[in-house]
Amino acid sequence: MRKLRVKSSSGGYDVLVGRGAWRALRRTKGYSSTFVLTEPGLWNRWGKKFSREAGVPGMKPLLVPAGEASKSLMWAGKIASQLLDRGADRRSLLIAFGGGVVGDLGGFVASTFMRGIDYVQAPTTILAQVDSSMGGKTAVNIRAMKNLVGTICAPKLVVSDPCVLASMTPRAFRSGLYEVVKHGILSGPGLFNWLERIVPGLRAKDAPLLETLVVRAAQVKVDVVSRDEREAELRQVLNLGHTFGHAIEEATGYRRFLHGEAVAWGLLMVTRLAELAGVLELAAGKRIARLVRAVGPLPGITGVREERVLGLLTRDKKAVGGKVLWILPERIGKVRLTSDVSRDAVVRAFREVQRGEWNA
Amino acid sequence: MRKLRVKSSSGGYDVLVGRGAWRALRRTKGYSSTFVLTEPGLWNRWGKKFSREAGVPGMKPLLVPAGEASKSLMWAGKIASQLLDRGADRRSLLIAFGGGVVGDLGGFVASTFMRGIDYVQAPTTILAQVDSSMGGKTAVNIRAMKNLVGTICAPKLVVSDPCVLASMTPRAFRSGLYEVVKHGILSGPGLFNWLERIVPGLRAKDAPLLETLVVRAAQVKVDVVSRDEREAELRQVLNLGHTFGHAIEEATGYRRFLHGEAVAWGLLMVTRLAELAGVLELAAGKRIARLVRAVGPLPGITGVREERVLGLLTRDKKAVGGKVLWILPERIGKVRLTSDVSRDAVVRAFREVQRGEWNA
Repeated sequence: MRKLRVKSSSGGYDVLVGRGAWRALRRTKGYSSTFVLTEPGLWNRWGKKFSREAGVPGMKPLLVPAGEASKSLMWAGKIASQLLDRGADRRSLLIAFGGGVVGDLGGFVASTFMRGIDYVQAPTTILAQVDSSMGGKTAVNIRAMKNLVGTICAPKLVVSDPCVLASMTPRAFRSGLYEVVKHGILSGPGLFNWLERIVPGLRAKDAPLLETLVVRAAQVKVDVVSRDEREAELRQVLNLGHTFGHAIEEATGYRRFLHGEAVAWGLLMVTRLAELAGVLELAAGKRIARLVRAVGPLPGITGVREERVLGLLTRDKKAVGGKVLWILPERIGKVRLTSDVSRDAVVRAFREVQRGEWNA
Repeated sequence: MRKLRVKSSSGGYDVLVGRGAWRALRRTKGYSSTFVLTEPGLWNRWGKKFSREAGVPGMKPLLVPAGEASKSLMWAGKIASQLLDRGADRRSLLIAFGGGVVGDLGGFVASTFMRGIDYVQAPTTILAQVDSSMGGKTAVNIRAMKNLVGTICAPKLVVSDPCVLASMTPRAFRSGLYEVVKHGILSGPGLFNWLERIVPGLRAKDAPLLETLVVRAAQVKVDVVSRDEREAELRQVLNLGHTFGHAIEEATGYRRFLHGEAVAWGLLMVTRLAELAGVLELAAGKRIARLVRAVGPLPGITGVREERVLGLLTRDKKAVGGKVLWILPERIGKVRLTSDVSRDAVVRAFREVQRGEWNA
């Protein structure tokens, strides 16, 4: 078991990673009641073990359907309503047991229910364990606009047991690994080189190796959000690959790609864009592309409408006054934030990657 | 024009009260775009003057229907969606031009749109000018539960021009005055004695007097929230009369009473409760009852179901573990927070006031 520490304006919180991490929930004291938000399938598979270890046996969870559609104001309202009916008050605790959707939605509900109650993240996917469970970003989607409405509100604790990763589908597992690759690019040669070695043969059941992977990748996130909780600037580096990624997800109605898969395409495009902008050496571009590909097969991107994706880029939350803020890799371990990128370069990066003309 | 200053975790903000206060908006700089949230009737009457003075001529506002039903997650989502469609980004400013509903809803939208944009409160009712526009409490209602979901997020500025009060209906005007009475009880003899003198003859068109009234009553709120933004304890005193008040509003489906009217009944009941609990002298109780009555006629409370109101009390946001936290006046200028009140006393206070058996 490893303990990471996130600094936050509210005083900071622990991120516990490893077998048995859920047991730490037994030490959360002083709450009038405890509630768990989760998805039915996940709870069927892991609910009993989780409840036992967390010390809340017989817990009847609040359930939302699996999938992005649950990350809505409508579901936020339903859950708030259920919390009220079950007697939750300002001293209640909410545990978000699930992947990014449950974590983002649960965090949003907790941060707004009676103007804020405490919550714990118990992430159950790679993506959530290395990324979305930390940093206190909560959100729901409005129409097709992902994370348009949300808060920044730190959890009290994050407990990640990689044992749950064993039940992920291979596709969802790979989708999470793309975010790990992103962290490798941000972090530097130490993590990146290690990922180059282990990613090709990695499987969801490699428990000890996955524990190391989650700890190392989560550390990248912890370091960034500890220095910039409110996304003044530094934290935006975590959106590497997400500007294209979000646009691709939205352009395909969130149906064709899992989030990490869209980010993978986004990483390829933004890496090519960095090359075209003359800020990245070609050798590094090749390595990034190779590592993305090494994760495994990606759903194809042919047919995704270029004008639609380009039109969506300016709706990115980082865009100000219609100008997109790009996060471009300069080398393994360093990115640059810039709005100084020509539209031609953006178009070309998208096209070359879409057509498989670049490091495919 | 008077300037009050609220201290807040985000650094504090000014509250400008007086003729021409809206002009201060011309000094808000550095935003990529500015949006106004308001209600159609209000905008028809005051929009032109407001736009001209605020320096946003020709502004096309975002409109919500007048009334409590607009304080919903559904409307929050619609407005977020409209903001996006109109090109709002993280550097946009939202101005909430209206009463408590527009202020609470606008603040909620601003504090969650793209995880938080700046906003300004431009309150247009007495209630909003002396109370809800300050302190950063934002909220929407869930089903019949008022303010169940919300945030605490300070505005950048509050601009209150009492000129708008002239167009309030007499009933809405009186409703706001009940909150002023509440501030008088909290504040002490200085404000309370003055209110005893001016309230009986006060009219919505008494502009200079109203400016003084808004300044004096707003100062009470400013003092409290500056010392306790997160409602650790002190801020809860502002809920004087609201525990019964909210329950009465909800028990009557938010149809019979305006908010301030329900609070007026709540003030009477909690004053009687304080007497029964032996914490308030009878003379002070008489004076409070007399000042509440001096505001004018209140919609009757007969027929409001006692069991329903009593059942709703424990759902108050201040309740913890099913125990209601009561705010009881001890004397003019001092209240006590306590859960140590018998159910019998609560029932008796409700009944005596409902039946007109106490200081009616």
